[in-house]
Amino acid sequence: MGDREENREMTAANQLGAAEAAAAIREGRLTSEALVRACLERIEEREASVHAWVALDPDAAIAQARAADAAPSAGPIHGLPVGIKDIIDTADLPTRHGSPIYAENRPTCDAACVAMIRRAGAVVLGKTVTTEFASLTPRETRNPHDPARTPGGSSSGSAAAVADCMVPLAYGTQTAGSVIRPASFCGVVAYKGSFGALPMAGIKPYGPLLDTLGIFARQVGDTALVRAALTGAPAVPEALPRPPRVALFRTHEWDRAEAACHDAVEGAARLMAEAGAEVVEVVPPDAFRDLVEAQMLVLAYEGARSYASEYERAPALVSEGMRSEIERGLAIPHADYTAAWALAHECGRLMAGLLESHDCLLTASAPGEAPVGEATGDPVFNRGWTFLHAACLTLPVARGPNGMPIGVQAVAGPGRDDHLLRVGQWMEAALTAN
Amino acid sequence: MGDREENREMTAANQLGAAEAAAAIREGRLTSEALVRACLERIEEREASVHAWVALDPDAAIAQARAADAAPSAGPIHGLPVGIKDIIDTADLPTRHGSPIYAENRPTCDAACVAMIRRAGAVVLGKTVTTEFASLTPRETRNPHDPARTPGGSSSGSAAAVADCMVPLAYGTQTAGSVIRPASFCGVVAYKGSFGALPMAGIKPYGPLLDTLGIFARQVGDTALVRAALTGAPAVPEALPRPPRVALFRTHEWDRAEAACHDAVEGAARLMAEAGAEVVEVVPPDAFRDLVEAQMLVLAYEGARSYASEYERAPALVSEGMRSEIERGLAIPHADYTAAWALAHECGRLMAGLLESHDCLLTASAPGEAPVGEATGDPVFNRGWTFLHAACLTLPVARGPNGMPIGVQAVAGPGRDDHLLRVGQWMEAALTAN
Repeated sequence: MGDREENREMTAANQLGAAEAAAAIREGRLTSEALVRACLERIEEREASVHAWVALDPDAAIAQARAADAAPSAGPIHGLPVGIKDIIDTADLPTRHGSPIYAENRPTCDAACVAMIRRAGAVVLGKTVTTEFASLTPRETRNPHDPARTPGGSSSGSAAAVADCMVPLAYGTQTAGSVIRPASFCGVVAYKGSFGALPMAGIKPYGPLLDTLGIFARQVGDTALVRAALTGAPAVPEALPRPPRVALFRTHEWDRAEAACHDAVEGAARLMAEAGAEVVEVVPPDAFRDLVEAQMLVLAYEGARSYASEYERAPALVSEGMRSEIERGLAIPHADYTAAWALAHECGRLMAGLLESHDCLLTASAPGEAPVGEATGDPVFNRGWTFLHAACLTLPVARGPNGMPIGVQAVAGPGRDDHLLRVGQWMEAALTAN
Repeated sequence: MGDREENREMTAANQLGAAEAAAAIREGRLTSEALVRACLERIEEREASVHAWVALDPDAAIAQARAADAAPSAGPIHGLPVGIKDIIDTADLPTRHGSPIYAENRPTCDAACVAMIRRAGAVVLGKTVTTEFASLTPRETRNPHDPARTPGGSSSGSAAAVADCMVPLAYGTQTAGSVIRPASFCGVVAYKGSFGALPMAGIKPYGPLLDTLGIFARQVGDTALVRAALTGAPAVPEALPRPPRVALFRTHEWDRAEAACHDAVEGAARLMAEAGAEVVEVVPPDAFRDLVEAQMLVLAYEGARSYASEYERAPALVSEGMRSEIERGLAIPHADYTAAWALAHECGRLMAGLLESHDCLLTASAPGEAPVGEATGDPVFNRGWTFLHAACLTLPVARGPNGMPIGVQAVAGPGRDDHLLRVGQWMEAALTAN
C-alpha cells in the first residue's frame, strides 16, 4: 500500500515543471531521488517509442540525486534532473555529437553549462539525441505526440524528452533553428539565449558566430532558473510594470507557413491585445528579404571550417548531406561571407530600431505542425533571428489540424534576454489563461 | 662536400620568412622536407635554452613534408611548417592546454585552423608551449633574446619559436594580450584577427566573447598567407592607393609604458609621417579610462565559467592563481558583467568614429622590453583592443636599453582585418627601410 502511494507520487513528479518540482523539493514534499526515479521510469516506459536518449546511466543519476538530497540547497534548480544535448561535453557520459566519428569520445571535463548547473545542485540525467553534428541530418528520435512525425532538430532528443515528461529541463543549441523549431513541434517552452548570453565552452562549435545555447522547459520561469544558474541573472524575472508593446512581424517568409501557424500567431496577438498589450503589425524591412539566404551562406561557410577535419579524416563517416554542405561552404568566396555579415549588421540596426518602441517581436516559431517523416523540418522562421544574435522564446499555444502542437515566438535584441523572459512570462499568463 | 653545401642551404632555410620559403619551394629551390629538417635541426640546437615546444614528432613532420613535396601545390603556404599553440586541437599530437589535467588528452580531430592549413598543404610541425589554459600562469619557455626574460604569454612557445627561427609561422590565441605582447617581447610580427575573423572551432575557449586566433611570422605578408588559407581572403594584401591616415593613440595607460616603448611608438609615427602618412594624435576618449578594468572583469566572469569543470573536478591540478581568478569570476554579479559589455559597446562606437577618418590607430604593443623573470608581462596595452573585437598587428621596430625587441601596434576595427594587413604592409616598408 505504502509502495503504491509512493509510486503514484513518483509518477506525478515527472510531470511537474522545474519551478514546481524545485519548490516541492525545497518544501520537503519531494526528493530529488524520487523525481529522478520518476523520470527514469517514464523513460523506461516510453523510450522505445520516442528514442530521445543516447546515453543514460540511471545508477549515476540516482547517486547524483541522493547527493543533492543530502546536501544543503545550492539554489533554485537544486535536485532537478536535466537532459544534455549530445554535442555538449560531459565528463561522466560519452559525448558522441550524433556521429560515429565520436563513438568513443569521452571528454575530460564538463562543458561550462554543465559544470555550472552541477554547482547549482542539478542532476545530469543523460545525453539526448542530436542530429549529426547538430546539422539537418536526422537521427532516431520521434515526436512524442505522433511517432510518424519528426520532433524537429537538431536538439531532437531534448525537445522530445521534455515534451514527453521524461525530464523537466533539457539543453539544446541553436545555430539556425535547432531550439525554437523542435520546441514548437513538440509543444514545449524553449528559450534560446542571445549570442554570447549563455556560456559556450565545451559545446562543439558549428557556426561559431551563430551558435547559442537554449533551454527546453514547461514554463518560461523554468528557463529563467537555469539561466540564473549559468549567469547569475535573476532566477525569477521581474513582472513587467505594464503590458508589453508587441510588434507583430510576419517576415518575408510568411507564405511558407501553414494556415494553422498563421492562426496561432494571429490568435496570440489577439489574446495579448485583449490582455492589454499594444500589438501593432510592422512591415518587415526590405533588407530582411535576403536574410535567411545570407544566414545559410554564413552557416555553410563557418560549418565547413568547423568540420573540415572530420570531413578530411573520416569522409565515409560523414553523411552525404553534411559532406556536400561542407563542400559548398569551402567554395564560398570570402567576400560573399563578409557581405552576408554586412547584411546581418544592417538588419540588426533595423531590428534595434523596431525594438526601441516595442518590447518584443511576435512571429512564427516554425512553419506549422511537425512534418511527417524523418526530415527535421524547416528552420526558415529561426535562421534570421539566430543570425541577428537575438534572444528567442517559443510558447506552445495552439494545435494544428492534425492535433500537433504549434508555438509562437517572441524575439528580443542581443543582450535583452532578461527583458525577453519578463515579456515571456506576461505572454504565458495572457496566452494560457483558460 | 655536397653534404656540406646541402647543410648550409638547410641552415639558411629556417631563417626564411614564410612567403620567401614558399616561393623557394614553388620555384624548386627548396623542398618542404629540407625546410622542415632545417627547422627541426634548429630546434634540436636551441630547444634546451628556449623550451618553446611541448610536443614534437620529427618523423611525422618529415612525412608530412615529403607528402607535400610529392603533391601538387595546394596554395601559397604549401609545404610550410607551422607551430600550433597547445590549446588548439590536433589529432596527431597531444593537446595538453598547459595543464596536467590534460596530460593524456588526444583530440579526435584537428581544430578548424589546423585542418584548413593542412588542406592548404602546410606541415604541422609540433605543439608550442602555452601558459596554463592560456592564462597568466607561466610555463617553461624563455625569451630567445635573453633566457633570463619571459617570451610573454600566453602564446609563449609560438612567439619564441618564430623569433628563434625554429619555424616560420605559428598560431597563438589572444583573449587579453596573448599574441601581440609576446610578439613584441620576442621581436616578431604578429597579426591577431578581429573577433570572429578566423575560425575558432577546436580551440579551447577561455573568454568565448574575447578569444581570437593570431599568427606569428616574420613579415606582415606571411600572416596574410595563413589568413588566406583559413578564410579565402586574398593571400597578398592589395597595396594601399595612398599612404595611410594614422591616429596616434597613447591610451590612458601611457604612463605604464617604459620610455623605450614611448620612443618606439613616437619614432614609428615620425618615420611613417616622413614616408607620407598623415599622422595625427588623438586624445583617448574618457570612456576608455575604465576599459582595461572592464575587460579584466569580463575575462574573469567568462573564464570562471569556461573552467568551472576543471576547477570543480581537479582543483589540486589548477594553479593557485587560476583558482583565485575563477573564484573571483564566479562571484561577479551578472549586472556588473553586462555593464562591462555596455562600456565596451560605447567604446566600440567611439573607436568606429575615430576610424572613420583614419586607417588605423597606432599604439604600444606592450609596456616595453620583456621583463626579467617568469611572469609573462602586462597585457595592459592589449586588453582594450581585444575587448573591442579589434584586429591588431604588431611590428618589431626598435630595441630597448637592454637590447630587447620592442614592437608597435596597429589597430583596426572589427572585420577590418583586410584593411589592417594592407596598412601593415605599408608600415612595414616605411619602418624597416634602412
